[in-house]
Amino acid sequence: MLMQISLFELAKLVDGTIIGDENTTVTTLSPLDDIAHDSLVFADGLAHVKQAETSVANAILVGKEITSSTKTLLQVTNPVNAFIKLLQYFYPAYKPTIGIHPTAHIGKNVTLGENISIAPNVVIESGSIIEDNCVIKANAYIGHDVVIKSGSIIHPNVVIYDLTQIGHNVIIHASSVIGSDGFGYKFDNGQHIKIPHVGRVIIEDNVEIGANTVIDRATIGATVIGKGTKIDNLVQIAHSVKLGQNNILCAFTGIAGSTTSGNNVIFAANVGVSDHVRIDDGVILGARAGVPPKKHLKNGNIYLGSPARPKDKAIELELSATRIPIMRRNLQALSAKVTQLEKQLESIT
Amino acid sequence: MLMQISLFELAKLVDGTIIGDENTTVTTLSPLDDIAHDSLVFADGLAHVKQAETSVANAILVGKEITSSTKTLLQVTNPVNAFIKLLQYFYPAYKPTIGIHPTAHIGKNVTLGENISIAPNVVIESGSIIEDNCVIKANAYIGHDVVIKSGSIIHPNVVIYDLTQIGHNVIIHASSVIGSDGFGYKFDNGQHIKIPHVGRVIIEDNVEIGANTVIDRATIGATVIGKGTKIDNLVQIAHSVKLGQNNILCAFTGIAGSTTSGNNVIFAANVGVSDHVRIDDGVILGARAGVPPKKHLKNGNIYLGSPARPKDKAIELELSATRIPIMRRNLQALSAKVTQLEKQLESIT
Amino acid sequence: MLMQISLFELAKLVDGTIIGDENTTVTTLSPLDDIAHDSLVFADGLAHVKQAETSVANAILVGKEITSSTKTLLQVTNPVNAFIKLLQYFYPAYKPTIGIHPTAHIGKNVTLGENISIAPNVVIESGSIIEDNCVIKANAYIGHDVVIKSGSIIHPNVVIYDLTQIGHNVIIHASSVIGSDGFGYKFDNGQHIKIPHVGRVIIEDNVEIGANTVIDRATIGATVIGKGTKIDNLVQIAHSVKLGQNNILCAFTGIAGSTTSGNNVIFAANVGVSDHVRIDDGVILGARAGVPPKKHLKNGNIYLGSPARPKDKAIELELSATRIPIMRRNLQALSAKVTQLEKQLESIT
Repeated sequence: MLMQISLFELAKLVDGTIIGDENTTVTTLSPLDDIAHDSLVFADGLAHVKQAETSVANAILVGKEITSSTKTLLQVTNPVNAFIKLLQYFYPAYKPTIGIHPTAHIGKNVTLGENISIAPNVVIESGSIIEDNCVIKANAYIGHDVVIKSGSIIHPNVVIYDLTQIGHNVIIHASSVIGSDGFGYKFDNGQHIKIPHVGRVIIEDNVEIGANTVIDRATIGATVIGKGTKIDNLVQIAHSVKLGQNNILCAFTGIAGSTTSGNNVIFAANVGVSDHVRIDDGVILGARAGVPPKKHLKNGNIYLGSPARPKDKAIELELSATRIPIMRRNLQALSAKVTQLEKQLESIT
Repeated sequence: MLMQISLFELAKLVDGTIIGDENTTVTTLSPLDDIAHDSLVFADGLAHVKQAETSVANAILVGKEITSSTKTLLQVTNPVNAFIKLLQYFYPAYKPTIGIHPTAHIGKNVTLGENISIAPNVVIESGSIIEDNCVIKANAYIGHDVVIKSGSIIHPNVVIYDLTQIGHNVIIHASSVIGSDGFGYKFDNGQHIKIPHVGRVIIEDNVEIGANTVIDRATIGATVIGKGTKIDNLVQIAHSVKLGQNNILCAFTGIAGSTTSGNNVIFAANVGVSDHVRIDDGVILGARAGVPPKKHLKNGNIYLGSPARPKDKAIELELSATRIPIMRRNLQALSAKVTQLEKQLESIT
Repeated sequence: MLMQISLFELAKLVDGTIIGDENTTVTTLSPLDDIAHDSLVFADGLAHVKQAETSVANAILVGKEITSSTKTLLQVTNPVNAFIKLLQYFYPAYKPTIGIHPTAHIGKNVTLGENISIAPNVVIESGSIIEDNCVIKANAYIGHDVVIKSGSIIHPNVVIYDLTQIGHNVIIHASSVIGSDGFGYKFDNGQHIKIPHVGRVIIEDNVEIGANTVIDRATIGATVIGKGTKIDNLVQIAHSVKLGQNNILCAFTGIAGSTTSGNNVIFAANVGVSDHVRIDDGVILGARAGVPPKKHLKNGNIYLGSPARPKDKAIELELSATRIPIMRRNLQALSAKVTQLEKQLESIT
């Protein structure tokens, strides 16, 4: 039932070289951490190739630096690109229907580009612009004066509030909400008075946002997600946050109001960053790190724990904690000794 | 305004025996932790019966092992089943309208079973199969080639991506997302390149999933939720995770890529499990437990804290931490004593 | 392109007094933490005025207690109200279209008030009541026998389950879910048996709820959100919780079953409160505080950490932890000294 495809065919597809038997066939692809029988597995680096050699895979996709193996190799210049190309070959995606479904509600003065797909029950409010090659899936809501640049994909039931600006080739997964009001109140006369949020959200090119994530609009001005930044499911970005380029935000990460990050920052899962924090380029925040308000996290450092500390300090503290029981015993033993010494000394004097 | 219903009537309904006055009436049912006036309260075990006896309830629903009480008893063989039956009697649910609403969009080659309810604005893409007695509520989106087996309920605004397989009698609450792309990129040439996610999600029979939860599809292969597993609201299950049967996952729990669990595992609230963790049958993870990558959690153990440790060790550590202030004082006192001893000794020699 | 508006005009709008040059113009408003060029910035208190004076703002909005400045002042009786009025003047919101969109599905015996806006694809099930001046945005789902009192706004793709009661002037942001089944099972004969949830959710007046938040219905009875309470995005409120008035719940906060809070309680981000906890008026829970089951948090106290402790104790513990490495060194030094003393003493005796 599974296709048997020869490495010879695959090599043509990705402009690769076969080292070993070109009649070797595979039925599927595998990532290194879940290798299927008779598959072509992608392994970068010698250690991973060794691991692949002991597996049930039939062949290994490698870069130019790997030249021999106990299994047949498919050698290419850029293995990541080749793997992606092969995934698309083995598992072609459903093509969206081009055109505007008759049940979509398109407001006044909406500008629609070429070659776009607008699915059933999509609502696009007045003044919005959807550029060429965009795909807006079923039941998505797009508010007033929103701009979505070419090549972007909005998955089902996504809600985009008024005035949001979305760049080129952005992907937003199902049920995420972009541009909702920030959480800002002024306590006055015994109640929380809502501060109107009149700013917007700007999402730059090549950003991907997971499912059920929320990005709030700025109080005034803009909440900004920098180019190439990737956001997981169930992430919270508060009002007026400004994230740099190519950041990674894992699930359950929350960034509070007006915090900024540089480029290439990594937020592991469930990281909490308070308001008005400044995060430099290349900072890595470990899983569950918690950053108090107004901190400045310095260039390229790794921070762990809550409150977050530079890695070495955090590990020292963590290790210390495990030493308390033994310290306690040592302290008791020492105390007994001292008592003993006191007695001895007393008996002398 | 409230119905007065005699225990005599209720006993007939659940095939029970009355111990006490069969003319006792009740107006509602109560769980043990929120007992209403004039109610029938469900109490399992003697301690709970004692608690119910001192309450404002009129009568107590018990198992066969309870034979006398200061209040009237309704004694049954299986009190859980009887309580559920009585809840449904006192509070009958709204029956969904059978049939396909004219505003539903049913794609090509969709197979629909008998006695199903498809609400307004539901979208079902081509190739999907919805078996008998399923209920698909308003604005839900069902992608291409999805299978939903008989008796399942999909609540409003749920999004199910292409190729997902859902078992019998599954319940998915509002706005949850099943089958979105996993969070997987390869950093190459200064950018995060998206790895296409060509796998799927398989949800086995009798699973219930809360609201605004997300379960990502596998990179290749399947993310699997085992039979009878129950998932709360706002939970995140990453790509290629495989959960066993009858697991319990409370709110804000996140399970990272390729982690596996056995049967009867409990994840209390806000548990974070890193990638490639192996969790044996019967493991319990306490609230906020955090598990580092590639750990192996052993059969039936309880793990607490972050990083998660076996219960005894975690409690010892937690207690140790509270002892630091007193250890510090003891250390200072001991230090003073030693200084004193040194002086004394010096004066002798 | 930006409007130049004179303080003279703005003073008329908010019944204010100008101290300085009434011909001063501004182009926008600013919050204090993100001051734009040529703007009117809102500063409460002398310290904030000093900060505003050194900024790129053109003028400062102040209360009556501030009477002079190096910048032009717009002095008003209630600066919060004036700032909100000016925000609405500078950034007028889109007005919803009054009326019922023809694609909305209105069930039997639904009562609709005056001057309401019901957007495309809204579904309202039988028996529900929507009072005057309510706005129900696109793709929202409103179950059976729901009541929404006057002036409330339901954003797109919100799901409100059967029997929910919503007060006056409530705002619910996109994709939130109100009234889903609580997470309650009884383990019986090797499986988790679902307890039917026949209670409801009651949301009182002036509550605001963020995006992708979930509030579960009670088992029996009601989950209650008190008047004026404000809930952020991605918050979880479990079955039968009862929150008092004017609470603040920040993102990723989770409150487990049957917990109650008094008035003016603050839950900072990612707070986890277990079941059956009792929280008095005015309690503040710091970010990431974790409260074990059945605790009683006392009136007006601040609690930090996990497990949550009164502030002083939590800070002492936190500081202690950082002292372990130095304690360890001290303990080693002291131990060496004692060994030395022992030797000396031995040589004497």
